[in-house]
Amino acid sequence: MDLKEVYSNVEKLYDTEIVLEGWIRNHRKQKEFGFIDFYDGTCFKSVQIVYDNNLSNFDEITKYHIGSSIKVKGKVIKSPAKGQEFEIKAEEVTLLGDCPEDYPLQPKRHSREFLREIGYLRPRVSLFQAVFRIRSLAAHAIHTYFQDRGYVYFHAPLITGSDCEGAGEMFRVTSFDLNNIPKDENGNIDFKKDFFGKEASLTVSGQLQAETFATAFKKVYTFGPTFRAENSNTKVHASEFWMIEPEVAFCDLNGIMDIEEDMLKFIVSYVLDKAKDELEFLDKFVENGLIEKLTKLVDSKFTRITHKEVISILKKADVKWEFEPEYGEDIAKEHEKYITEYFDGPVFITDWPKDIKAFYMKANEDGETVAAADLEVPGAGEIMGGSQREESYEKLLKRMDELNMDKKELDWYLNLRKFGTCVHSGFGMGFERLLIYLTGVENIRDVIPYPRTPNNCEF
Amino acid sequence: MDLKEVYSNVEKLYDTEIVLEGWIRNHRKQKEFGFIDFYDGTCFKSVQIVYDNNLSNFDEITKYHIGSSIKVKGKVIKSPAKGQEFEIKAEEVTLLGDCPEDYPLQPKRHSREFLREIGYLRPRVSLFQAVFRIRSLAAHAIHTYFQDRGYVYFHAPLITGSDCEGAGEMFRVTSFDLNNIPKDENGNIDFKKDFFGKEASLTVSGQLQAETFATAFKKVYTFGPTFRAENSNTKVHASEFWMIEPEVAFCDLNGIMDIEEDMLKFIVSYVLDKAKDELEFLDKFVENGLIEKLTKLVDSKFTRITHKEVISILKKADVKWEFEPEYGEDIAKEHEKYITEYFDGPVFITDWPKDIKAFYMKANEDGETVAAADLEVPGAGEIMGGSQREESYEKLLKRMDELNMDKKELDWYLNLRKFGTCVHSGFGMGFERLLIYLTGVENIRDVIPYPRTPNNCEF
Repeated sequence: MDLKEVYSNVEKLYDTEIVLEGWIRNHRKQKEFGFIDFYDGTCFKSVQIVYDNNLSNFDEITKYHIGSSIKVKGKVIKSPAKGQEFEIKAEEVTLLGDCPEDYPLQPKRHSREFLREIGYLRPRVSLFQAVFRIRSLAAHAIHTYFQDRGYVYFHAPLITGSDCEGAGEMFRVTSFDLNNIPKDENGNIDFKKDFFGKEASLTVSGQLQAETFATAFKKVYTFGPTFRAENSNTKVHASEFWMIEPEVAFCDLNGIMDIEEDMLKFIVSYVLDKAKDELEFLDKFVENGLIEKLTKLVDSKFTRITHKEVISILKKADVKWEFEPEYGEDIAKEHEKYITEYFDGPVFITDWPKDIKAFYMKANEDGETVAAADLEVPGAGEIMGGSQREESYEKLLKRMDELNMDKKELDWYLNLRKFGTCVHSGFGMGFERLLIYLTGVENIRDVIPYPRTPNNCEF
Repeated sequence: MDLKEVYSNVEKLYDTEIVLEGWIRNHRKQKEFGFIDFYDGTCFKSVQIVYDNNLSNFDEITKYHIGSSIKVKGKVIKSPAKGQEFEIKAEEVTLLGDCPEDYPLQPKRHSREFLREIGYLRPRVSLFQAVFRIRSLAAHAIHTYFQDRGYVYFHAPLITGSDCEGAGEMFRVTSFDLNNIPKDENGNIDFKKDFFGKEASLTVSGQLQAETFATAFKKVYTFGPTFRAENSNTKVHASEFWMIEPEVAFCDLNGIMDIEEDMLKFIVSYVLDKAKDELEFLDKFVENGLIEKLTKLVDSKFTRITHKEVISILKKADVKWEFEPEYGEDIAKEHEKYITEYFDGPVFITDWPKDIKAFYMKANEDGETVAAADLEVPGAGEIMGGSQREESYEKLLKRMDELNMDKKELDWYLNLRKFGTCVHSGFGMGFERLLIYLTGVENIRDVIPYPRTPNNCEF
């Protein structure tokens, strides 16, 4: 039986004999009694197993080490101890798998850095039991949100022959023997001989391909890994991370902001509902006020304001900025923070200067800005970025020319504007950014099971 | 409004004015009337839009091309035409995005090969509307199955520093400039200078890492991309494909077969329920009897039989084999087919010769076989492969030694057997193999949005 089932049905289970299999998190022994703090990973909570010297192997049990796996047969009884509703009165305790005394996860505080080094064991500790269960729940919340609303889940390709989103930051994928790379007659690398017959990389975004599916299914979303070969050793950058990229035909910028707001509230509500124990733990030990922060988000109205207006507010503010806010320029972390505090809630910043945004965003009539919106959330900064896409063939072509882009490589993308083009919009959300927000854990390395960062590709 | 909503609520919508946005799939004009076959991608079905010369732009509308996007305001009315329940009587039809007359998707049969060349347009045709909606639904069925049963969704790493599952078939991931690969003093490639400070590749399986999470959360599953740099140009091989790899602690081989059977029936039932129109189309045009095949699977009892018994049956069969069946050897496609026909249903073949199976599978007491099970399904062949994992540190170590494996690289995996080891089992299912079975479409290139195969990495 799963421990989760016991917690869900405890009223019905009193005085019933059950069998559990799991691990010893802690173990206290007395002369005639022993207490095992037992968990099986199916729920955040552990349960106390009480055994006494009526058991034939009492002496043996008292020697069971922390980390060992055991099988327990016993009765669910009301607990006389404080802080717990019930416990298991053991009738049989059997050792399944021993654990040596030098097991790294002894019951004491371990630093996050140390736990990263034993990444294959860290999911066993409470912090990561909470974080990775929330990761799983949040993922399912996202699928549920979109599927219930008729979206088609689109698996964007991971290996791509296109480098138009920023070649310098892409990982190359090859099956060449690096000691013996074939060259052509001019001494250039002969990529025709590589696996795909051309240069190939790991994708940084599935958006462009998602647009092809949005113009077939109207409403689609991606949820898959993306990669960045950026040599950034920060708390928020990883080389491999998961993204959600919804794309909706016949939807303008305001429409996509409605979806972003609705989706985020749905995910947060879902996690608040399904991960109560996990959030209580995180609220207590990781981010005080976490639950209040999340509850407030669900009830808040998201502000929508243009980039220009934001700069005006920032300029008027009585603050000594590290980076002076300027019209036509990007905004810094300190500005994001100020603006969400100013409006006391999430803020969509819209209509960004075109020169700091991507080529595919729809040009506004002012000739200076594009129909883009970044969502700034209190305590998290930018959590999503979206835009209306340029649906005009001529305008998109012109913009690509201005930016000296290779149109041939993206002819299929341009052609979407030729064959029954339509107003359409989409956004991207970094899944780990969301998880940092949901869990209060600050370092992206602690919300990814096996993080990949510069010089780190363990397990 | 989505066309799907209209189909779901048509009884309530008669004589109501609605607005739809979508595309023209076909267009017939008469002197005083016109008929547009309209779809918006939110459901498999299209709807007939009827317009007449009372509309001020009647002449203009008659010229709208196939593939154009339009906006239609009109009333839902009972259809006098055969084969359709209702139609839309247009009050306004507006062109949103024109489409030239040389649009590749004219209403006629196109070959699958041609459609692959225009991969960015093919999701618009009925076949791929069906296939990719089923892909999306099947994916959600899988998440729903596991989440409802308390499994944790585990994102396995895609980039891996380990090559123990078969180096020859892995893609290398690098940020080296291939024209200038750094060498060390001995003239060897200096991988310390590569992005991760070591050799890195794309994963072929997330199983080993999933085991680390199963020994923390008891029940976990992966659902993510995996890669194979195999130079196979067949109908069932792709270089990038999605896998589902569940892993369950305290579960033996029989337990994992129970889960496989239950899961597969759940997915098939889900798709039968949610994709009626799509399956009817596929049954009619792609695989006659598809729906019957799927329905039969849900009601069938899966046979469990050992590899040895299978070989005995094959040897007794009055068949001239291309490959002679032999004890201790793998079985061929023709054998798989015979066995599923012999038992008239899905068959788990268990207890395989250890030398043709992976190192981590649990050794049986006979010293010759391992606790592995492949699931053979009528009309699909092997659709899942699972095993009980070797939980004994000593036995696993010995097996790795026999196979000359690098134990150091897998010390973390071995250590799972040191720190509270437990009986555990898991299986892998290729998502595209499942889709081939569910849709009747034979070529893996036609169930992946943008397939990657040798010499092919388009879009």
